[in-house]
Amino acid sequence: MRANGRNEDRIRPITITTQVNKYAEGSVLIEMGDTKVICTATVEEKVPPFLKGQGKGWVTAEYSMLPRATGTRNQREAARGKLTGRTMEIQRLIGRALRSVVNLQALGERSITLDCDVIQADGGTRTASITGAFVALVYAVDRIAVQHKLPVFPITDYLAAVSVGIVGGTPLLDLCYEEDSKAAVDMNVVMTGSGEFVELQGTGEERPFSRSELNRLLELGESGVLELIEAQRRALGALELKIGSNRPSREA
Amino acid sequence: MRANGRNEDRIRPITITTQVNKYAEGSVLIEMGDTKVICTATVEEKVPPFLKGQGKGWVTAEYSMLPRATGTRNQREAARGKLTGRTMEIQRLIGRALRSVVNLQALGERSITLDCDVIQADGGTRTASITGAFVALVYAVDRIAVQHKLPVFPITDYLAAVSVGIVGGTPLLDLCYEEDSKAAVDMNVVMTGSGEFVELQGTGEERPFSRSELNRLLELGESGVLELIEAQRRALGALELKIGSNRPSREA
Amino acid sequence: MRANGRNEDRIRPITITTQVNKYAEGSVLIEMGDTKVICTATVEEKVPPFLKGQGKGWVTAEYSMLPRATGTRNQREAARGKLTGRTMEIQRLIGRALRSVVNLQALGERSITLDCDVIQADGGTRTASITGAFVALVYAVDRIAVQHKLPVFPITDYLAAVSVGIVGGTPLLDLCYEEDSKAAVDMNVVMTGSGEFVELQGTGEERPFSRSELNRLLELGESGVLELIEAQRRALGALELKIGSNRPSREA
Amino acid sequence: MRANGRNEDRIRPITITTQVNKYAEGSVLIEMGDTKVICTATVEEKVPPFLKGQGKGWVTAEYSMLPRATGTRNQREAARGKLTGRTMEIQRLIGRALRSVVNLQALGERSITLDCDVIQADGGTRTASITGAFVALVYAVDRIAVQHKLPVFPITDYLAAVSVGIVGGTPLLDLCYEEDSKAAVDMNVVMTGSGEFVELQGTGEERPFSRSELNRLLELGESGVLELIEAQRRALGALELKIGSNRPSREA
Amino acid sequence: MRANGRNEDRIRPITITTQVNKYAEGSVLIEMGDTKVICTATVEEKVPPFLKGQGKGWVTAEYSMLPRATGTRNQREAARGKLTGRTMEIQRLIGRALRSVVNLQALGERSITLDCDVIQADGGTRTASITGAFVALVYAVDRIAVQHKLPVFPITDYLAAVSVGIVGGTPLLDLCYEEDSKAAVDMNVVMTGSGEFVELQGTGEERPFSRSELNRLLELGESGVLELIEAQRRALGALELKIGSNRPSREA
Amino acid sequence: MRANGRNEDRIRPITITTQVNKYAEGSVLIEMGDTKVICTATVEEKVPPFLKGQGKGWVTAEYSMLPRATGTRNQREAARGKLTGRTMEIQRLIGRALRSVVNLQALGERSITLDCDVIQADGGTRTASITGAFVALVYAVDRIAVQHKLPVFPITDYLAAVSVGIVGGTPLLDLCYEEDSKAAVDMNVVMTGSGEFVELQGTGEERPFSRSELNRLLELGESGVLELIEAQRRALGALELKIGSNRPSREA
Repeated sequence: MRANGRNEDRIRPITITTQVNKYAEGSVLIEMGDTKVICTATVEEKVPPFLKGQGKGWVTAEYSMLPRATGTRNQREAARGKLTGRTMEIQRLIGRALRSVVNLQALGERSITLDCDVIQADGGTRTASITGAFVALVYAVDRIAVQHKLPVFPITDYLAAVSVGIVGGTPLLDLCYEEDSKAAVDMNVVMTGSGEFVELQGTGEERPFSRSELNRLLELGESGVLELIEAQRRALGALELKIGSNRPSREA
Repeated sequence: MRANGRNEDRIRPITITTQVNKYAEGSVLIEMGDTKVICTATVEEKVPPFLKGQGKGWVTAEYSMLPRATGTRNQREAARGKLTGRTMEIQRLIGRALRSVVNLQALGERSITLDCDVIQADGGTRTASITGAFVALVYAVDRIAVQHKLPVFPITDYLAAVSVGIVGGTPLLDLCYEEDSKAAVDMNVVMTGSGEFVELQGTGEERPFSRSELNRLLELGESGVLELIEAQRRALGALELKIGSNRPSREA
Repeated sequence: MRANGRNEDRIRPITITTQVNKYAEGSVLIEMGDTKVICTATVEEKVPPFLKGQGKGWVTAEYSMLPRATGTRNQREAARGKLTGRTMEIQRLIGRALRSVVNLQALGERSITLDCDVIQADGGTRTASITGAFVALVYAVDRIAVQHKLPVFPITDYLAAVSVGIVGGTPLLDLCYEEDSKAAVDMNVVMTGSGEFVELQGTGEERPFSRSELNRLLELGESGVLELIEAQRRALGALELKIGSNRPSREA
Repeated sequence: MRANGRNEDRIRPITITTQVNKYAEGSVLIEMGDTKVICTATVEEKVPPFLKGQGKGWVTAEYSMLPRATGTRNQREAARGKLTGRTMEIQRLIGRALRSVVNLQALGERSITLDCDVIQADGGTRTASITGAFVALVYAVDRIAVQHKLPVFPITDYLAAVSVGIVGGTPLLDLCYEEDSKAAVDMNVVMTGSGEFVELQGTGEERPFSRSELNRLLELGESGVLELIEAQRRALGALELKIGSNRPSREA
Repeated sequence: MRANGRNEDRIRPITITTQVNKYAEGSVLIEMGDTKVICTATVEEKVPPFLKGQGKGWVTAEYSMLPRATGTRNQREAARGKLTGRTMEIQRLIGRALRSVVNLQALGERSITLDCDVIQADGGTRTASITGAFVALVYAVDRIAVQHKLPVFPITDYLAAVSVGIVGGTPLLDLCYEEDSKAAVDMNVVMTGSGEFVELQGTGEERPFSRSELNRLLELGESGVLELIEAQRRALGALELKIGSNRPSREA
Repeated sequence: MRANGRNEDRIRPITITTQVNKYAEGSVLIEMGDTKVICTATVEEKVPPFLKGQGKGWVTAEYSMLPRATGTRNQREAARGKLTGRTMEIQRLIGRALRSVVNLQALGERSITLDCDVIQADGGTRTASITGAFVALVYAVDRIAVQHKLPVFPITDYLAAVSVGIVGGTPLLDLCYEEDSKAAVDMNVVMTGSGEFVELQGTGEERPFSRSELNRLLELGESGVLELIEAQRRALGALELKIGSNRPSREA
């Protein structure tokens, strides 16, 4: 039995509080169970050097945990003088995933930085960061769209992420820390509102996994993402209607 | 006239929410107006090398701002690969101030790290950090005191801090960011519950200041600190009685 | 049509030259088309601090590219003073994948470092590193097994990796650099000799991908890994028989 | 009794030797007892990015100690790869204090860097740095004033600094290292020639201090600074007359 | 007797394989006995800031060893976060030596970077790097000369380097690692095709050395360099004729 | 004609002032013309890890220039966060040279660090550092020898260094900065009191140099070193007699 009597195919209680920061162009506090992440979106009217002059925008992300977000205190990366491999891997993932649902051409030559700061960690911080950052991103994009009268709303679809894994032989949805630390197989699933994969990262931590196990994990992930997108819709309120109204037809 | 009709000798609304983190031995969310800081206290059963084997404890602090705690986004110090001078100065100040009201001998050979993470900044982040960290510290110390049956409660007195300054020729208590950026003179006052100074840092940012101006600033600071200590007492509840019950008599 | 008339489901010509370094306990030059990686295995009779005294061994990997392994010269990470996120992500992947087929208990309290240095890059450097490092690892482990008369051979199964992707709407096996840079979807598949997944990393670089596309990519990956394992067997010669003779039964 | 029979309210013997460096636009060797600091002023015809195009100048400072300036050798900060918090705090203080007596508008769009290198340390290195750097600064400014025929001499007042503290219950002026290491309260006082405060940094190292103790320390500091300014006047010779001839009237 | 029956005044077998990298403008694998170095030359149409606008080119070098190039594994400099003093010293030497035979004016405002990566080390890696990098450099320069129709071929002379030393009282040419580790005196000799010195670095590792010992070492070095230049000529093939055809007459 | 009417074969005026630092076990201010270096020797009763338990001592050196030691200000290496290649090369040279005249066995398991800080630079800072550091070293060693009643005085010979070079076709001894910047050939010569070479570093900055030019430079260097050793003897006073009294007979 899981903690709080949760079923194998259930996500934890989710709360998305919007506009929690008085300065940021978009901001969100996302809580999935005891995992809490502040996501802020910052708009800047410039792009990285490699994009200059192309008329396209950029979306990037940074991720960090407060030192005591976890059971034992972690040394600050600023004090160590460098980012850990884990942090780099996670922030690259978040940025890549978010860009997949942004029409960078429609955004214009400006960039948005999503800061995901984990206030408290109980498993699934990277997937909660993606799910929360998406909402903060939409708020920031809307502000740009209104202010600059963009002809096309640059968000092409919903985007959310959840973790799945095999613990004690049972495939589970949305692992908390205790489950995650015992998982034989661990997978992060990032999907769009139209039910397609944006990113899939599965690891056989303790043992390899078969094709049929993979299929069961993907099913769990899919149902979890659908529920998360419902929560995003509620958090977005009126903005909800703008998303994907201009979804590009599929190419290459 | 100050924002929100505040008088020259008034602090901003203050809220101290305790035990906001499920892992930390002590934790606090302190809000002074729009300035919000999460302070967590972590206890470790070891001391830095220079204290080993002396039977004494240690208290230290770290300070950081989320990138978008301010009007424009700041680069993360972890990404820059090093702490700024400002951060180092602030965290040295916080640690030094807290140690002044801790009986390190009574604490025993263990250390407490106070992490002060600014979620949103509107002036006075370092003084809010001291005021909030003190409360988190007391919670953590109480846990040690109970668990290890310490004969003496190691906190010797209350400790709080506030900023004062001269803006447009007028001495003001508890500057918000906008006031601070226009201040000709700027001072941080750290005081104990018994009304003595622990730290005094005054700077003539725009012009030097006279002895009589100094005196007026100290009066404002003193009254501000008294109010803050009242808020700390309320936040500490039953723990309030333990503080200073064993205050050491004055020596050298 | 692909370069050199290659079919969609074909890997590039592969060569694995063993024991190319006179000092290393195991070493391999792996060539997949124009991608060339030197993999060396170094044995040390000690383990990282977190494993000390547990009687278990450790396997880890480091990855690097020579500055001119690619079309334009890259700055050395040593000159930049830090590893890029890409490098960290890759070397974490290689180490994790290799550990999945090592019985760390049987290895005993010693560690093996796999250095994967890309001499020339033409796509698929991380998967070639895994495939080549596996062979170098087996040589090093055999040396330990013989020297210390290990009762159980610590390699539990074969391990190889290959990239797959969707380019111009067509799913392809083993992408060269030019294909990779145009891929809409990109996936790395790491599998064991018994046909199970150890790691799966799929990214919709240009657009999300559907469940049926995923299935086609997995099929391609599976067939590619089988061919690579054949090449590994040939490169291992007599050592081939020792692998997996003691494969643990499934748990967790 | 203090070393060398010094009274409580006496500074140590002070020597300021000017123009000790053949390249620098201004340079000074200041000796206060056994504390020796070389201060050089370097003029550059450019300003930091944040001041560009505003027609204003900049004054900044750097501080360092030779490894064996002290009783035991300190590791070089260059070898450690970063500045300590103490160094950052000190050089920020020196720069801020010097800027308070410079009319940056009158200086024009150029910057002056004051390097304070402690050759031998016996307490009070930061205050000696300020006192010495002021003299080097005046020499450099005079060179600019003459060369560019500045209509207003950009130094508005004298500036000097001294440490005070409470040792064994007695307030003392100008602490040497041995006294400083035993001080219960420690304060640095930076003042102008017109007797006003530019910076005040008081710390209750061993115990908090009262308002009346503060007052006694400020009196000692004031008398010390007056003596130091006398020494500066002598070291400046003919330049002495130029200072403050254009002191701005007080504003906000 | 030396390993493999080599005489005191003999170099080890040398092989120079050219154009081993499909991307680099020039590339070489040089093998001297068991020492193996890959040298690549990268051309960029820009120069460092200090040379901008002078119409002159630049040649520089970087040097590195793979972690397991040696008997025991070395930590990567990228992982340590900085270059060792040894590496810096060597790459400065290689760059300086190569520049001495390049007519930077004739090269035009472009730069060439020589990367010397030691695949396997058995003594003499820095001298092998110089000897190999020279050949890679000529290939790259020829490509520039042809493409840009340079009126003068910018390589003014041959350049090669060899180590000499005194081992067990006997002066030896081209030390392998085992000899080098026992050498009392150690010297690197860099010479041109016309028999003059470009760089001479002699160190009395175990004892000082006399003028007559120096003379014997220089003779050995001279004969070694002549043999190496023969090998370079063979490796250059038709390019051989272009070198030094425009050697500048001596000045300064 | 050289500055100050100096002949080609003359060194600049040299002054060695001893024991200029009240804390260091040995200290010297060496002035060669306008080049001024403070050298301090610090004794520590421990050795680096690689020497532990072997009963042998260690001598090492660090080198640095004050930012304004030169005509234009250099950024501090501590601010840059790392040592330049030039600094590393120089401090390795100084340490290696000094060790060549120390009997590390006789010194016992302790280490001496020579800090060479250039106060003002006018050419020849590395050679002045060696010459000055030798004197500081002897003072420190004598203190050890007396205190620990060493049976053998651990300094085996004198050691001094000087630069030579070819400027405008003329070989010159002891180059000042202006000469050095125009030199076609540049050489540093480190020699012992018995007239043998410890280190020889010659570079053809502008053109290669012939064997006969080398010979002339070595003659100049030899005569310069002899004069410097005379100055060292005068600076050592009574300590002069102790050096080399136990010079080891030549081996290997």
